[in-house]
Amino acid sequence: MGKSEAESILSGDRRALARLLTQVENGSHEGRRTLDELFPHTGKAHLIGVTGAPGTGKSTLVNQVALQYRSPAAANPKRVAIVAVDPSSPFTGGAVLGDRVRMRDLAGDPGVFIRSMASRGSLGGLAQTTAAVVQVFDAAGYDVILIETVGAGQTEVDIARLAHTTLVVESPGLGDEIQAIKAGILEIADILVINKADLPGAEKTEHALRGMLGLAHPVEKVFHHHGQAMILPESKPADTSQWVPPILRTISTDGTGVEELMTAIEQHAQHLRQSGEWGRRERARLEAELEALLTETLVRKFRTSVPDVRYDEMVDRLVQRTLSPWEAVKALLNGGA
Amino acid sequence: MGKSEAESILSGDRRALARLLTQVENGSHEGRRTLDELFPHTGKAHLIGVTGAPGTGKSTLVNQVALQYRSPAAANPKRVAIVAVDPSSPFTGGAVLGDRVRMRDLAGDPGVFIRSMASRGSLGGLAQTTAAVVQVFDAAGYDVILIETVGAGQTEVDIARLAHTTLVVESPGLGDEIQAIKAGILEIADILVINKADLPGAEKTEHALRGMLGLAHPVEKVFHHHGQAMILPESKPADTSQWVPPILRTISTDGTGVEELMTAIEQHAQHLRQSGEWGRRERARLEAELEALLTETLVRKFRTSVPDVRYDEMVDRLVQRTLSPWEAVKALLNGGA
Repeated sequence: MGKSEAESILSGDRRALARLLTQVENGSHEGRRTLDELFPHTGKAHLIGVTGAPGTGKSTLVNQVALQYRSPAAANPKRVAIVAVDPSSPFTGGAVLGDRVRMRDLAGDPGVFIRSMASRGSLGGLAQTTAAVVQVFDAAGYDVILIETVGAGQTEVDIARLAHTTLVVESPGLGDEIQAIKAGILEIADILVINKADLPGAEKTEHALRGMLGLAHPVEKVFHHHGQAMILPESKPADTSQWVPPILRTISTDGTGVEELMTAIEQHAQHLRQSGEWGRRERARLEAELEALLTETLVRKFRTSVPDVRYDEMVDRLVQRTLSPWEAVKALLNGGA
Repeated sequence: MGKSEAESILSGDRRALARLLTQVENGSHEGRRTLDELFPHTGKAHLIGVTGAPGTGKSTLVNQVALQYRSPAAANPKRVAIVAVDPSSPFTGGAVLGDRVRMRDLAGDPGVFIRSMASRGSLGGLAQTTAAVVQVFDAAGYDVILIETVGAGQTEVDIARLAHTTLVVESPGLGDEIQAIKAGILEIADILVINKADLPGAEKTEHALRGMLGLAHPVEKVFHHHGQAMILPESKPADTSQWVPPILRTISTDGTGVEELMTAIEQHAQHLRQSGEWGRRERARLEAELEALLTETLVRKFRTSVPDVRYDEMVDRLVQRTLSPWEAVKALLNGGA
């Protein structure tokens, strides 16, 4: 008897790994069984999310970080997986292009595995599929998993929540109006990177980010005293248990600032471990995964139990306004109406 | 015996309306019952979604559109509700500010009702709560419901899907890089508005939008013939059943272009009715609402049936890697493990 798929993956078989990733993306039962077998081997990797708008040079930066982890100069080179997720419209074609550019630097290194995720057609949602793909790499012994997403919407935030450490990448020249839209994503940033820092406007971008960071992670605290707002001085004793996201400048095309970025990533990992936050993020992540799977399973089981014709009849009655949405739910659950 | 809440709302009682909106936002059972009673009276309003980045002057434009509907010069003034949804971080405070600015123009008009939706704390998701709020206004006899959202993420797209007609508002001066991120939202645009058209760069923004619109709604069609892509000429006969989103310029602060916008909105409504698309959108919307309510109900019922201690035990076992997420779901559903 040969090895099981899980055993092949644990022993470093890249073909078996690629095969499982495809199964997982397609939501196949076989893939699910292998995932179950691999699960006890997960929980070791450092998951690093990298998000930012198109044009910030994010993919090149991810390449640079991967190269640093692989550097022969590193005391302890790490195995690196890159998961590139592009939830935008298929016509932008960003994910595929990113892969090609990467090939030149990282191709042929057996310690690196790059996977692009299609934006459409994945079952159970992109965040859920990404979680499963990350689990596969974790079990397969990749020490660092770089999860790259484009944009600042809810999907990106959900995917970033998978990570232990989240990098938000900006570049100079983004208008002030646009900065505002990104306030939400700043809340998830552990490290802020201004890439393309050689372009004019890096100073202005850093200033804008500092302002927004002050709102998301206030250093001063505002107290209300007899209805008057009192702002405490910035010189209050530092709260050492709190991580203040550093703002770093990089030029990913020539590697400037990438070493400092590596140091910040390492410091953040240490902070997570020392503060107990690593375990809390891990638990929250697994709980979210359980909830998503549970929801998907409950809905699928229920929908299988209701004939399509009955479901369509309910929608007809909603359109005719002879039944309200709540009444339709009750009727479907209780078999009445 | 007095009137029921539903009867009060149907007879135009604004206090009862405000009370129900609060109940609906809080997900109360009482609100749900009143919603059920009101549901047969819905399906008449024209739902208009308005979305765009902060700083595009979207709120002022919504005010102008509302004022046009209320104009004494209009042959048939309409009752207008404005639902302002801000899914971004609470610290931007956009929704509240928007309300105050509006008060000056529209306050005191009994044919207008303005409601801001808080971003957090709403049960069952913001898109679902917005759907319920829109239903309330529809039943209460508001002919036009303007649903205003900020940004271009999944939440905004979900909310825009509620509408019959979706306006996407841009303003000059947005960088090209940012345009790319918005490609997704263009796919949902029925009408594109370049507001603040007196600012420099309006021409460039229109050009960029035309380019992106060409990708999202191609006029030319590409055919594959023996593996060769063939591009048909633009002069092919127009497909009259297809709506090509117009690009309009407005200056919402002085009302320039707002009349043309009103005409485009009216033309879109006519197009929807004549093509049968109005009914299809209505059906898709009600089906999505049914699915969301069904999912919420199934998950809530299930979670009530499982003791918290058992659920926590499952999460513990995930953290310890002694059970996989799928095994945990199976164990919870079957009472095993």
